[in-house]
Formats: sequence, C-alpha cells, structure tokens
Amino acid sequence: MLFKVEMDVNVPAGFDAERFETLKAAEKARFQDLQRAGTWRHIRRVVGHYSNVSIFDVGSNAELHDILTTLPLYPFMAVRVTALCRHPSSIHDDDR
Amino acid sequence: MLFKVEMDVNVPAGFDAERFETLKAAEKARFQDLQRAGTWRHIRRVVGHYSNVSIFDVGSNAELHDILTTLPLYPFMAVRVTALCRHPSSIHDDDR
Amino acid sequence: MLFKVEMDVNVPAGFDAERFETLKAAEKARFQDLQRAGTWRHIRRVVGHYSNVSIFDVGSNAELHDILTTLPLYPFMAVRVTALCRHPSSIHDDDR
Amino acid sequence: MLFKVEMDVNVPAGFDAERFETLKAAEKARFQDLQRAGTWRHIRRVVGHYSNVSIFDVGSNAELHDILTTLPLYPFMAVRVTALCRHPSSIHDDDR
Amino acid sequence: MLFKVEMDVNVPAGFDAERFETLKAAEKARFQDLQRAGTWRHIRRVVGHYSNVSIFDVGSNAELHDILTTLPLYPFMAVRVTALCRHPSSIHDDDR
Amino acid sequence: MLFKVEMDVNVPAGFDAERFETLKAAEKARFQDLQRAGTWRHIRRVVGHYSNVSIFDVGSNAELHDILTTLPLYPFMAVRVTALCRHPSSIHDDDR
Amino acid sequence: MLFKVEMDVNVPAGFDAERFETLKAAEKARFQDLQRAGTWRHIRRVVGHYSNVSIFDVGSNAELHDILTTLPLYPFMAVRVTALCRHPSSIHDDDR
Amino acid sequence: MLFKVEMDVNVPAGFDAERFETLKAAEKARFQDLQRAGTWRHIRRVVGHYSNVSIFDVGSNAELHDILTTLPLYPFMAVRVTALCRHPSSIHDDDR
Amino acid sequence: MLFKVEMDVNVPAGFDAERFETLKAAEKARFQDLQRAGTWRHIRRVVGHYSNVSIFDVGSNAELHDILTTLPLYPFMAVRVTALCRHPSSIHDDDR
Amino acid sequence: MLFKVEMDVNVPAGFDAERFETLKAAEKARFQDLQRAGTWRHIRRVVGHYSNVSIFDVGSNAELHDILTTLPLYPFMAVRVTALCRHPSSIHDDDR
Repeated sequence: MLFKVEMDVNVPAGFDAERFETLKAAEKARFQDLQRAGTWRHIRRVVGHYSNVSIFDVGSNAELHDILTTLPLYPFMAVRVTALCRHPSSIHDDDR
Repeated sequence: MLFKVEMDVNVPAGFDAERFETLKAAEKARFQDLQRAGTWRHIRRVVGHYSNVSIFDVGSNAELHDILTTLPLYPFMAVRVTALCRHPSSIHDDDR
Repeated sequence: MLFKVEMDVNVPAGFDAERFETLKAAEKARFQDLQRAGTWRHIRRVVGHYSNVSIFDVGSNAELHDILTTLPLYPFMAVRVTALCRHPSSIHDDDR
Repeated sequence: MLFKVEMDVNVPAGFDAERFETLKAAEKARFQDLQRAGTWRHIRRVVGHYSNVSIFDVGSNAELHDILTTLPLYPFMAVRVTALCRHPSSIHDDDR
Repeated sequence: MLFKVEMDVNVPAGFDAERFETLKAAEKARFQDLQRAGTWRHIRRVVGHYSNVSIFDVGSNAELHDILTTLPLYPFMAVRVTALCRHPSSIHDDDR
Repeated sequence: MLFKVEMDVNVPAGFDAERFETLKAAEKARFQDLQRAGTWRHIRRVVGHYSNVSIFDVGSNAELHDILTTLPLYPFMAVRVTALCRHPSSIHDDDR
Repeated sequence: MLFKVEMDVNVPAGFDAERFETLKAAEKARFQDLQRAGTWRHIRRVVGHYSNVSIFDVGSNAELHDILTTLPLYPFMAVRVTALCRHPSSIHDDDR
Repeated sequence: MLFKVEMDVNVPAGFDAERFETLKAAEKARFQDLQRAGTWRHIRRVVGHYSNVSIFDVGSNAELHDILTTLPLYPFMAVRVTALCRHPSSIHDDDR
Repeated sequence: MLFKVEMDVNVPAGFDAERFETLKAAEKARFQDLQRAGTWRHIRRVVGHYSNVSIFDVGSNAELHDILTTLPLYPFMAVRVTALCRHPSSIHDDDR
Repeated sequence: MLFKVEMDVNVPAGFDAERFETLKAAEKARFQDLQRAGTWRHIRRVVGHYSNVSIFDVGSNAELHDILTTLPLYPFMAVRVTALCRHPSSIHDDDR
C-alpha cells in the first residue's frame, strides 16, 4: 500500500554538530536498507528546503508508523502522511 | 528536471455528463502519451479524493507550464507545483 | 487497517428535495451494509453540523478509495482521511 | 455524552528522559483505568505522529475538562475537543 | 451543560425577501421560546456582522444538535460549537 | 458596552511554580473585584484548555485595554477581543 | 471611541450596473454625512483593491453596528472590525 | 504617500527590564520626532494587545523601510505594511 | 518606486469566449504600453497557473492603484501588492 | 530557467553580533558573485522586513538547490521557491 510522506528536518540551533552527523549517517543507512527492501520506494528533495517527498509501499498502517517513528532523525522531523492508491490510467506495472 | 504536481479536479454541479466523459477520455489519452514519453513519470490517486500526486520530468519550467495548461481537464483543476531534485542518498538510478 | 474519515455534507441551495431524499436513503442503506460487514466500524455526528466522524477498517487504501468515492452522497461531501493504527496501551481487543 | 479528543504530544528537547518515562507510565495507568471504566471509550494512534484520536463518553463537559487537564502528560499536549452525538443511522447499540 | 455557539448568517443573493422575513420571524419566535426555557441562555450580536455569539445550557450534546439543526435559519448559517464549563473563580451562581 | 474576550494562558516550561501560584491568586482576586463591579460580566472555561471565554461590560475601549493589560497573568496570555452589542430579539434586560 | 474598520467590496458578476451606480452614489452621500459629523473620521483606499481602511469615532458599539449594517453597499461588503484606543505617546489632540 | 503599518511588540520572557525601558523611551522620542515631522501621521493602540495601527506619510518606499527598520523596538516587532492612497470620496484635505 | 504585484486570473465558467479574447487583447496592448514606458518593469508567468509575478516602477501609490484597477482583466483578477525597495547589495543600476 | 525565491532572515536573539556580521559579509560577496554571473538575476527588499524577493536564472532545479542551501545565511532563512517562465506578452528579450 502506497503513502506519500513529506518530511521537513529542523535542527535546533546549537545542537551538537558531531552528534547530528552521526544521526544523519544512521538515517542514510536505514533509508538505504528500506529502499533496497522496496519499502521506501522513492525519495526526492524539495528545492531550497531540508525536506523530502517520499513514497512508501508498506503492508499496513502500523508498519508505516513503526518505520517513521524509529527513523534516527524522526525527533527533528515534521511529517505529513497521505494515503495513496494506484491510478487506473497508469500504464506502469510498478506505479502501484 | 523533477516536479511534484498535485491536481484536484472539481466538476461544477450541472456540467454536461457526456461532455465530461469526452474530456476525461482525452485526458487519459494525453496522460498515457506523456507517461510513455517519460515526461509524466508517476501518477497516484489520493485516497477519498478526485485528486492525484504526480511526478513530472521535464526539460524546462516552460515545458511543464505548456503541458499542464493544455491538459483537457485543466479548466477543472486546482494545481500545486513543487520543484524537486535528486536526493543524494538514493540508490536508484531512475530516482532522479 | 484503520482510517478516520471525516465527512461534511453540503447540499447546494435549490437541489431537488425529493432527489436528495432518495440519495440519503441509498446512503443509509449502503452505510448499514458496510457497518454490518465491519468495514464502517463507527459513525458519530458532529454537534451542530451535517458532518460525521467515522472509523473504517479496510484491507487496503484502494478499498477505502472505492468505498468512499461510490457513496451515494459523495458528490456532496468534503472528505478528510487520516491513517490510524492500534494504540499499544489499549486494553480492548477490538480497538484495532 | 461523546466527544472526539485529539491529542498531540510534544516533548521539549532536553527534557529529562527518565522523568518522561515515569510520566508516560502514569499516563498509561490512568488511561487504562479510564478505559476500563468506559469513559475513554477508544484510542487510536495517528500514523507517523506522537498523537492519538480518542472517543470519550462522559456525564458532563466539566467531567471531561477535569479528566483531560489532570492527565500526567497534559502539560505536553495540544488538545482539540469536538462534541459528538449518536448518528441515527447506526445499527450498533454501543455507537452512542 | 454550557456551550458557546457562534452563528454567521449568509443569505444568498437573490433569495426571496418575503420568504426570508417569514423565516426570520420564525427564528425569533423559536429563539424566544428557548430563551424563556433557559436553554438559549444568552445571545449577543457581533458588531458589523450578521452574526451572534450565544451561550446554550443543554442536557446533552444530542439536545444541542437537535436544537441547532432545526432552527428556521439553520440552512443559511455557518456554526461553530465550543464546549464550556463553569469557571471555579466565578462568584455568580448562574455562571454555570 | 459589551466585548467578548477569549484568553489562553501559556506558562513557559520551567517558570517558577510558587511565583505562578502567587500570580494566579492575584489574578483571581482581581477577577472577582471586576466581577462584583459588573465589569467582568461572565467567565467560562473552555473544555480541555487553560482558556476562558469572558464577557466584559465597560464604559470605553480604553477602559477595556487598561483592565486587560494590567491583569496579573496578562504576560502569559494570548487574547482575542470582539466588539458585541445587544441583540434586538433578546428578552433579558441584562443581556446588554 | 475609535474602531478600525476594513471593508472589501465584492460585486457579483452580472449585477445590474445602473443599480450599482445608484447604490454607490448613496454610499458616497452617506459616507460624506458621516465624515462631516466626525463619525467616519478617516477613509483610505487599499492600493490595487476595491477596499478601504477607515477609522470610526462612535459613542458605542451599537452605534457602530447600526452605521455599518445600514450602509447602501453593506450587502456587498466583507467587514473586519478592530477596537482601538488613544496611544499615550501621541502628541496630536485629535489622535483619539 | 500613505501606508498603513501594523506593529506587534513581543518582548522575550527574561529580557532585561531596565534595558527594555531604555529602548521604550528611545522609541517614544523617535516616534514623537516623526509625528511632529508629519511622517508618522497617526498612531492608535489595538485594545488588549501590545500593538498599534499607524499611518505613515513618506516620500518613497525606501524612506519607509529606513524608518521602520531603525526603530529602537524594531527587533521586537512583527510588522505588516499595506500601501494606501487617497479615497476620492473624502472631504478632508488632509485625508491624503 | 518598486512594487511586486501578483495577479491570478479567474474566468467564470460560462463567460463568453469571444468577449474574453477581446479583453485579453486589450490587456496585452495595455501591458505592452506600460512595459515600453518602463512602468510595468517585469512580468513572468507562474508555472501551472493563469497567474503572473510582476514588478512595477511607479511615481506613487495612487498611480499604481489607477493602473491596476483599470486593467481590462482587472474584474477577473485576485491581486496581491507588496512594497519593495532597492537592495543595498545589488550591483545593477536598474535593480531599483 | 526562472524561479522566484523569497527569503526571510530571522536572527535568533542573543546570536553573536560579530559572527553575524561576518556571515552577512560572506553572504554579500556570494550574492554579488552570483549576480555578476547572471544567476541571481534580481534582488529587492521587502519594505519593513528583513526579507527579499529575488529572481534566479539557473540551469536546473538541482543547481538552485545547491546555491540556496549553501548561502552563508541559509541557516537563518525561511525560503519560498516558485517556478516561473517567460510571459508570452513580454517585449523584453531579457524577461526570460
């Protein structure tokens, strides 16, 4: 099942830079695991913002909740979740 | 270049049903031409709404403007355009 | 899977009253079928409004989309959809 | 009488983690007492957020106020309260 | 139980003036019955608007819903409902 | 002259609790003086919030400004002021 | 007593042009009477809009309500009312 | 040329009180110079708020920018600027 | 003096197409006169919308008001006006 | 390709003034390099705000993202990006 998830990252001024780099590296590793597994189907940056627009393909709402709330950068994120479904006009098999 | 385009379709009450079906068929044909061309990369429905979330891959802002404003259903659409770019963490070549 | 769906019904001034009663009766019948099936788990009215707050339990996002967009009163509705999941503290088995 | 209550929990950065766990445990215990009593009828999580959508069944507005404002996590919550009532189409006795 | 109800009246341009006067007279009669009964405790106009701020004292949410949705001018109203309760500092017995 | 004043109290995390209790006691005393004088006509709590909806009856805009901005809890308040006037349908002499 | 009143005029498409000119002339005459009387203290246009920002000096909220709601163009106006008072730093006697 | 400028002053909790009084005195002196010069034509307080509504009469946009951004309290202000012009119906010569 | 003006054009459904083309031609002619005169300094389209972002250079607020409100398409426009001024870092003489 | 970028600069209270001046000087130098290169086509101040409205001319969305997010003052900015394109009525060659 498809969801659009939009994430804005806000790092509080004065947050320890080294600790943030560690969290970013962990976030990237976690993201790539999920992308390889086909769960985090797409990610794109929003121009001019520390934000992304992503497509998730999950088995259930609960699975999506668990993934999002355990992301290393989750405590710094504002998140918007929108339920999607396949468009009947699409000619791509993987546009589910 | 990537853009997220969100389209909400609003058909005025009392609009001629047959004429609308004709426009919808033309919209579908135009969409599929653009999808085959790789321009309208993805389309997904928003659950519960006559709306979609789409990804366009175009050569310029002007090309996107021309495509959107000549869609058969454009006069019935509210449109939101967001400039995107490739995310450096993505492992998919086509996640541009 | 659980979703909160909030529906506001807006009948345009001058809409044929008899036709609206027919649609309302069809909506009620469809609702009760879905409630008996366990799909439309709960419905409650919002005080002072022609609106309801409902809980749906569906197998997929697509199923929810199909149910909502084929409701007899759907053309008169503004709809808001929010993905939910079971709360780990709940002691009710059916609070899924 | 029914109310929809939506709660968003925001923990300030740097709040003592152990103290927060103590408050969360107290919140869970209080919630379960109220759920057993039939007052906090339902609770569900909002996917991707530290938020819930709940249904309360109380004897009066004042009772709801006292319950909400004495929750252990209340100082960290943004709360939205909406008065509801039974929907005449519902076939469930307990959908009051 | 107390509720603040704010009502904005919007008469569509071109609505039959005589019919509207009839509805207004019915609204006034209904209002005065409810005020005499102690249900519609207070009403005040908002300066510069066809709007009022009212206090209702009702036995239940359902009673308030029935009162509001059967007002003669209800089809022309936008309504906002807020649940209130007695303030502990008040020295007026009837400030419930 | 009547005004609706809505007040939301926000105490910053970490504010000295004893000092806040002193301010609250001073606020209550000031409120009761004004209520006895007929100036702060009504006060009611908003369910689930540290907020009130009040009706003031003052001789001038300037008097209302002076009262509000010298309340002991004013530095912690967000305030919304709306000018009201007597509704011609009211049957209560004191609904001015 | 001073109030800022902001008025936006919206003429529905297709409204009879001659009738609107008659209403505008009546509005202008009424405005000038009120300006001469010192009630409608100031009026200024908002650049690019069919809107004005005005200052009224009235004896009561009710007087302002009666003035605004009987303006010839009132049925076409969206109005925002803000209560003002003299600023203690002003050196102008008439800046009341 | 006329501009409406609305200013809200927000003093951060804990700001040094003596320093703020010094800034307020400087602001008042600067304001009165500008009022005497006819530049800061009017100032009025917004009831219940640490805010004012002002009318400026300046020779250019740049002059207004320089005045506003060098006000002693500017770092504490949220400012809204609206371009105005003389209303053709006004009978006051100085209502420019 | 510089102003940013943003214009959204909304043509009501059913408006006579030939009459609209006539107005558009008149709008274009008027625009080009003003561009040649250096008054309407820049115009750009907003991608996906019947909207533009423009820069005007005018002698006064009143001149801008007269230009905007006499544009042939003005009755179909929603307009937002923002006062600008030269940025001190700019190295372009004509970036005034 | 053209983009409108609106930037609001917010310096947190208490930020080291000398360090901020250093960042501002670096921002100015970077801006002037980009203006000379024709990339940062225009910049104008918004009257009364620490904000600008700018026009960028870039080869791709990614180029714009890289420019904006590496500006020395970027960590203090709120940014809004809008895709533009040449208006067909413009008579200026460089109004692309």
